[in-house]
Amino acid sequence: MDSKRVGKRTVRFSSPPSIAGEACVVGRKEGDGPLAATFDYISQDPTFGETSWEKAESRMQKDALNRALDKAGIPASSLEYIFAGDLLNQCIGTSFGLREFGVPFYGLYGACSTMAESLSLAAMAVDGGFASWAAALTSSHFCSAERQYRTPLEYGGQRTPTAQWTVTGSGACILTRDGPGPYITHATAGKIVDKGIKDAANMGAAMAPAAYETLVSFFTDTNTTPRQYDLIVTGDLGLLGKEIVTDFFAKDGLDVSANYTDCGVLIYDIEKQDMHMGASGCGCSAVVLAGHLLSGLREGRYGKILFAGTGALLSPVSTQQGESIPSVCHLVCISNGKD
Amino acid sequence: MDSKRVGKRTVRFSSPPSIAGEACVVGRKEGDGPLAATFDYISQDPTFGETSWEKAESRMQKDALNRALDKAGIPASSLEYIFAGDLLNQCIGTSFGLREFGVPFYGLYGACSTMAESLSLAAMAVDGGFASWAAALTSSHFCSAERQYRTPLEYGGQRTPTAQWTVTGSGACILTRDGPGPYITHATAGKIVDKGIKDAANMGAAMAPAAYETLVSFFTDTNTTPRQYDLIVTGDLGLLGKEIVTDFFAKDGLDVSANYTDCGVLIYDIEKQDMHMGASGCGCSAVVLAGHLLSGLREGRYGKILFAGTGALLSPVSTQQGESIPSVCHLVCISNGKD
Repeated sequence: MDSKRVGKRTVRFSSPPSIAGEACVVGRKEGDGPLAATFDYISQDPTFGETSWEKAESRMQKDALNRALDKAGIPASSLEYIFAGDLLNQCIGTSFGLREFGVPFYGLYGACSTMAESLSLAAMAVDGGFASWAAALTSSHFCSAERQYRTPLEYGGQRTPTAQWTVTGSGACILTRDGPGPYITHATAGKIVDKGIKDAANMGAAMAPAAYETLVSFFTDTNTTPRQYDLIVTGDLGLLGKEIVTDFFAKDGLDVSANYTDCGVLIYDIEKQDMHMGASGCGCSAVVLAGHLLSGLREGRYGKILFAGTGALLSPVSTQQGESIPSVCHLVCISNGKD
Repeated sequence: MDSKRVGKRTVRFSSPPSIAGEACVVGRKEGDGPLAATFDYISQDPTFGETSWEKAESRMQKDALNRALDKAGIPASSLEYIFAGDLLNQCIGTSFGLREFGVPFYGLYGACSTMAESLSLAAMAVDGGFASWAAALTSSHFCSAERQYRTPLEYGGQRTPTAQWTVTGSGACILTRDGPGPYITHATAGKIVDKGIKDAANMGAAMAPAAYETLVSFFTDTNTTPRQYDLIVTGDLGLLGKEIVTDFFAKDGLDVSANYTDCGVLIYDIEKQDMHMGASGCGCSAVVLAGHLLSGLREGRYGKILFAGTGALLSPVSTQQGESIPSVCHLVCISNGKD
């Protein structure tokens, strides 16, 4: 057992990578929500000046990465790796968004867990001695996701009560070996968890068991309790998934209601914006992290948080074939201190 | 600059991970080709006993991973990570194939470069001190790919002369910290290269510049020449892409014809099996590596090879929107020695 491993599932970085800069860009609906002030750019135009929603998604990734690089104070050429992916088939938001940067690129698919996955792998690359600088980013776009996963927007389909709304946005973080933090101190990789939920319009319920499984593994591995963290934030379970996770912990005798929330609950004014169960999409946890959460750490509102990205690893084809929804949750611990 | 980095783009592992076991399963057409003897299992049934081609692909991944674990002599529970992905939308071949293993899982999307990408990241996880055991695997299936990327099989569409045939197969490798080799000694991550090719039925030409770019970076970084390797194998450029890469090197005054080949050229008897430009698909380079190439290393026919996986990062939607084909090539050096 290597010294970088803690317990069965968790890695503790020996030289925790520092987040040198982060940025997020979003669409109009996100800009109308309660986190508006934490976003670097809000576009009133759903195509971000491009000719298709897919190109808009690429444009958001490009913009988020450029802004994060600016904040980190480095040119793209200083990056040894970009770890990124998105929800579109074959991850074209990423491949077209990043093609001009000329940076070595490892593509990921983790559905809405991609931000946590990319941070985990970027942190491994830096802490493992393979990179001095690495970027982690992802995106989603309501319009491109809706026509790919559900129905054409023009169809005007009714949303079910458990539906979540795909965030239009992209978030990027730049990691480096030395810096003043916030630091990625730990990473716990998710197992695929599938409890048999088949309703693709109820992904919060499908993903909640994966979130609980990873969180419990992390607490066990690190011998800590939920109360020791200023905030535990999953993404993106929405209202129902958050309630399920809260219930799971309650059954263990742990009350997490005071310091547990979910990115899908935070980003919109759910009632006023009529968002049913809240938000989802790779971009959701990415922009909540790059905006609200990291500014909270930088400004001292939080000292140490758990960021647990959840992904539903289904496709329209698997749903049509009657399959249930395999889910995953990747966790990183982000702290102003190195321990 | 960390000591694990060599030149601008390449990583040299300080304790090169050893490949403890590898396995591959394929379909009938692959079993009819010249590498038949190197495959662990050849299925005469295109659905591998399942009820859909997508489920067949998951079944292949499960089978390849189980066989590789058997050869490595460890249970799945010893794996700290699986790095895997496939070509299907949202990588469902992987998420459904791996859901029963209960192993922490980082999902990748690298199109046909996925085997090289997964090996690179698994090697980083092991060499970086994050894992003692990690698996790298991928798959593709002709029937599931054809209906997703091109036309329904029942349509009987005519193939263009530059078309490649998606391999039905899955390959898996188990990496560990200590062992007798073969070792992953180096990894060079690919940049996205896009020279403007728009013909999705000519992916060899689209990907060849990415392969050349990564290979040249590796030779520059390591201060070596193509002649110092027993075999340089790209995958999957096919006949045309291989010719283009050979031409690029010839323009540099380097004759690579003696020791350069491509997985897409090796796996079928192209003329007899009427395979146009040869093979493609994530599974192609995976099964050629797990079968032909690693047995060549284990049996001493090769001492040191370069395995350069190439991926075309397009989607049917990007093609319909008039986009060109961004490509990537990830390289690993595999050697019977640790240097």
